[in-house]
Amino acid sequence: MIIKRYSEVTPGTYEGVPEGVQLREMITERDGAPNFSLRVFDVQPGAGTPFHAHEWEHEVFILDGTGRVVTEGKEYPFKAGDAVYIAPNEQHCFVADSGMMVRFVCVIPSKNRCRL
Amino acid sequence: MIIKRYSEVTPGTYEGVPEGVQLREMITERDGAPNFSLRVFDVQPGAGTPFHAHEWEHEVFILDGTGRVVTEGKEYPFKAGDAVYIAPNEQHCFVADSGMMVRFVCVIPSKNRCRL
Repeated sequence: MIIKRYSEVTPGTYEGVPEGVQLREMITERDGAPNFSLRVFDVQPGAGTPFHAHEWEHEVFILDGTGRVVTEGKEYPFKAGDAVYIAPNEQHCFVADSGMMVRFVCVIPSKNRCRL
Repeated sequence: MIIKRYSEVTPGTYEGVPEGVQLREMITERDGAPNFSLRVFDVQPGAGTPFHAHEWEHEVFILDGTGRVVTEGKEYPFKAGDAVYIAPNEQHCFVADSGMMVRFVCVIPSKNRCRL
């Protein structure tokens, strides 16, 4: 068993993470997790993750704030307490455009070693 | 893309889920998720998940409340903002023994079809 406090995990510096976005790797294969990784993202007001697609899925749970998730041709508002599923190869981004910081859990398959 | 509000997902009735514990399946293979499932647990004050072990791991993020995670011979307090990793085959339970309701995200591999 491993327990880590969010505030004690240093945000990582990763290629492709834009200004205004922080990524904390809370549980990864470095902790022995064999299948998937649990990260926490902080997105400052006015910032967002890049609009992109990749072959792996995202499973997201919104912790704080309100914003929008944008996919190809569609967008949806989200707020704390929402779960968002992004399918493999689906274009997407998460935008904090309501004047509030957005924080969310994002789980990905470990084998993809992706950062966003 | 699928978005679901926590409060709009009906808690499931599953074998082995004790009184005082609710499980909401937020993202599963029924949504097309190929690898892992994201659930939200509510544990009422005084309740807890059963002390047990299984071959799959848990990746947990505490959303609300304080309590204890118990493993074989050890126990650790947790509170909102903590991530907890339970390794495969590790005995464990989550207990809401502080007088507060505990809510947490728990991610498991889909292939195991487990409920706790």
